[in-house]
Amino acid sequence: MPTKPEILKVTPVSESRLFQVEALDLRFSNGVERRFERLALRGHGAVMVVALDADNNIQLIREYAAGLHDYVLTLPKGLIDAGETPLEAANRELQEEVGFGARQMVLLKNLSSAPNYMGHSMNVILARDLYPSKLEGDEPEPLERVPWPFDNIEELIVRDDFSEGRAIAALYLARHWLSQESETADA
Amino acid sequence: MPTKPEILKVTPVSESRLFQVEALDLRFSNGVERRFERLALRGHGAVMVVALDADNNIQLIREYAAGLHDYVLTLPKGLIDAGETPLEAANRELQEEVGFGARQMVLLKNLSSAPNYMGHSMNVILARDLYPSKLEGDEPEPLERVPWPFDNIEELIVRDDFSEGRAIAALYLARHWLSQESETADA
Repeated sequence: MPTKPEILKVTPVSESRLFQVEALDLRFSNGVERRFERLALRGHGAVMVVALDADNNIQLIREYAAGLHDYVLTLPKGLIDAGETPLEAANRELQEEVGFGARQMVLLKNLSSAPNYMGHSMNVILARDLYPSKLEGDEPEPLERVPWPFDNIEELIVRDDFSEGRAIAALYLARHWLSQESETADA
Repeated sequence: MPTKPEILKVTPVSESRLFQVEALDLRFSNGVERRFERLALRGHGAVMVVALDADNNIQLIREYAAGLHDYVLTLPKGLIDAGETPLEAANRELQEEVGFGARQMVLLKNLSSAPNYMGHSMNVILARDLYPSKLEGDEPEPLERVPWPFDNIEELIVRDDFSEGRAIAALYLARHWLSQESETADA
């Protein structure tokens, strides 16, 4: 593994309600110095949930995405609150956004988003053994729930309104994990 | 499809060399008003390249990712320059970062990153029929090239230093596209 560049200085550059930008003055191991900008990390990371019901449907939501100024289909997701574990956050978000709790959950992978300029992490969690349970979220309008057959995710992935890289990765990771589980069970 | 919220006002909030934050004052179709923040879009989008060589290896790079302050394995990628098509940008980035050009390229999908607060798009491109060709990039240090057997991407995806959601999505999208192509050829 190469030697990490030395951080010569971290300078706060700008700050808003959601985003804090910082400049990193770096010296690489070959002596080259360069200034990078990145979004500073705040909070405790996020979760994204692949929730499979008894009919083998995953639970999608349709929500307004301000970055695209459009409605998109995506997986239930949200920020981890202080003091919560990723699995607790996943179970809360699932109850807020879809109206289900989960008795069985497993962390599949911690995804990065755009690692060159942000450190944000997204914990992908597979949830099964669902039961009806509704918690109030803070959405400006009710989210539409869209159950989708898990055997048919390829048709979902080609849709223009299902474009989030992390959600596509999450579905494939879940499918791979479940295929491994089923191989183990068959062995 | 639901009615999009009305944008009442867009207010620039902060600006740095790389990041411009704007506030969106929105009125949802149910009358609820809410202020969102998002990263404003600049530039022409980005590309990420799944480049398959004649030995069925994909071309990975190991590079420093400032958001994580660590070295990561990832796919060749970069911003689209003014006047470039996504395929031209992909071919340029591949030559800068890996030292190959590609005679055959196809756009697989346009991925979003974190659509709730950024509109950035990443065009995923499959590149084949490679030939040696090196262009100079602007990296602070040479990138390490890591060829990886495409038949073995599951082992790559479980690695902690291969975490970018869009890259994981890109590999699975490429695998699905190639399996479809091979089915068509067999038919």
